[in-house]
Amino acid sequence: MNRVNSITVYTPQNYLEAYVGSHTLITGGAGFLGANLAHRLVQLGAHVTVVDSMVPTYGGNMFNLEGIRDKVRLNVSDVRDQNSLTWLVQDVDYIFNLAGQISHLDSMQDPFTDLEINCRSQLALLEVCRKVNPKVKVVYAGTRQIYGNPDYLPVDENHLVRPTDVNGINKAAGERYHLLYHTAYGMRTASLRLTNCYGPRQWMHDNRLTSQGWFLRQIMDGQEVQIFGDGKLLRDLNYVDDVTDAFLRVAAIEETNGHFFNLGAEPFSLVEQVELMIELVGKGSYRLVEWPPDKKSISISDYYGNYGKIRRMLGWQPRIHLREGLKRTIQYYDAHKEHYW
Amino acid sequence: MNRVNSITVYTPQNYLEAYVGSHTLITGGAGFLGANLAHRLVQLGAHVTVVDSMVPTYGGNMFNLEGIRDKVRLNVSDVRDQNSLTWLVQDVDYIFNLAGQISHLDSMQDPFTDLEINCRSQLALLEVCRKVNPKVKVVYAGTRQIYGNPDYLPVDENHLVRPTDVNGINKAAGERYHLLYHTAYGMRTASLRLTNCYGPRQWMHDNRLTSQGWFLRQIMDGQEVQIFGDGKLLRDLNYVDDVTDAFLRVAAIEETNGHFFNLGAEPFSLVEQVELMIELVGKGSYRLVEWPPDKKSISISDYYGNYGKIRRMLGWQPRIHLREGLKRTIQYYDAHKEHYW
Repeated sequence: MNRVNSITVYTPQNYLEAYVGSHTLITGGAGFLGANLAHRLVQLGAHVTVVDSMVPTYGGNMFNLEGIRDKVRLNVSDVRDQNSLTWLVQDVDYIFNLAGQISHLDSMQDPFTDLEINCRSQLALLEVCRKVNPKVKVVYAGTRQIYGNPDYLPVDENHLVRPTDVNGINKAAGERYHLLYHTAYGMRTASLRLTNCYGPRQWMHDNRLTSQGWFLRQIMDGQEVQIFGDGKLLRDLNYVDDVTDAFLRVAAIEETNGHFFNLGAEPFSLVEQVELMIELVGKGSYRLVEWPPDKKSISISDYYGNYGKIRRMLGWQPRIHLREGLKRTIQYYDAHKEHYW
Repeated sequence: MNRVNSITVYTPQNYLEAYVGSHTLITGGAGFLGANLAHRLVQLGAHVTVVDSMVPTYGGNMFNLEGIRDKVRLNVSDVRDQNSLTWLVQDVDYIFNLAGQISHLDSMQDPFTDLEINCRSQLALLEVCRKVNPKVKVVYAGTRQIYGNPDYLPVDENHLVRPTDVNGINKAAGERYHLLYHTAYGMRTASLRLTNCYGPRQWMHDNRLTSQGWFLRQIMDGQEVQIFGDGKLLRDLNYVDDVTDAFLRVAAIEETNGHFFNLGAEPFSLVEQVELMIELVGKGSYRLVEWPPDKKSISISDYYGNYGKIRRMLGWQPRIHLREGLKRTIQYYDAHKEHYW
């Protein structure tokens, strides 16, 4: 059974209405993006099931659900567990498929675990949906990482996919399975190719999952940040509320089926980002250091995304500027540091 | 130990000399391309180890090694078996990595087996090589299938990779692992993106692995071939000796490391191919029929490859015209039909 009203057509003007009373499932829902999405969906009046493996190093944090713990159904299980998946995907209208192994370095050290989670589990989720809930909308959290080193900037969706690490290769396959299940079986699938995201509820324990979070933590602790190389590397960063909004648009609007979309924002160099953090926090410093060889070999040169496709089709654009987003982020961790440090 | 003489530089003029006394390993070596390569390598004076899983439906056929059975080392084992791999890849100079699940329809019906063979096993082979024989040259048998429906013709290596089935997605990942092990670890890897291949020693039991082989078998049996659609679909076909020659060039010439290359040939419509077969065999007929839905949903429109890159870098071009190649193929199956039908 699918509760989406097949008569209502959702558009960039009314897409938030799609979630009132809807049944949604978020894989990786105790993680950074998943939890922010859960908070927003609860606010919009959705019934939310959060599934998370709580693998200690993957980003899940129960404090991320603080404030909505009694409003969501929490199911701790691994996306590699097909039986639990089968039960969970029944009768849901929307699946936000965010569970994944996202560390690039880990994927090189243990490529088989990355394969299990980022390929096999994605295939398993899609197969289960095809069998027990073929009308569900599934939005996949893809990544700009799959483009590898850009041939041109800003990178649009016509750029070649040429990943520089095992994680990127497997994430590319994971995305393609989703799109294939649209072309081959008519399923309602789509993917967002996320660029760097930042904001409240991010993993701040170490630098395996994000550079920006790690920079900010060190600066908030008054420490010296080490920036690899000359610090001029360009990156675009999306504040988490903008990312959440993109997921909500893609899931609700039917024209997205079978499509993938870049996100993106105005680019800043690593030094500019760190200097802005230092200014806003009022302490900390930085120093340029040599690239460690294991990181250098899989690192990516300047990147920023062309988000023209999602702007044209879905009316999305980044609304929170880096300065404002960082202010909110600092405020959050100032209040809740003990749950993230 | 790596026996490749680091002083000798092999070029498009002398590449065949690389194999005299070399130690080579062919995965999938009892299959169509693998066995033809084994015959050629034995002829060139190489020490050849053939590894094949002999999974009944995957294309391996012991008769393919007829005539060289006492000149090759045959090891029946599965590329999913990492222990046997570890032993096999030691002390070899060249690995021709041709083992794979190649049925597109099978990959949709059992995507997990396709994933095991075309992703996990490739990763396992590369990891094993990195650990016990990091200097070995590995040439991967990729496929034009990963391009999906072409945006333009002929398709060159800058075309987007956009597979239309699980097999294509996994083959794309398998190829990328190979290229990654070059960029990340400096290993000597390369890939050939094969187009349709035909010739002696091909799987002729059914139409799961090749359309052309199945057409030819039916015509040689005096039967009526069913061509899906209007029969105008364009395909380029490489005769197996040309394909073998491409593998030998890529493996021997150092400049190929980290590269992938299209093969290709002059395109013919399905009707033209079948009419030529009927003319050469002197019997058989054909009829146009509707596409079956399960095949249609993953089918690919007109395709032919631009092989300019391999021609420029390695001097390769197809030398056996379709008419000549089909003649040799018909002659082979006339003599050995009982081992293939």
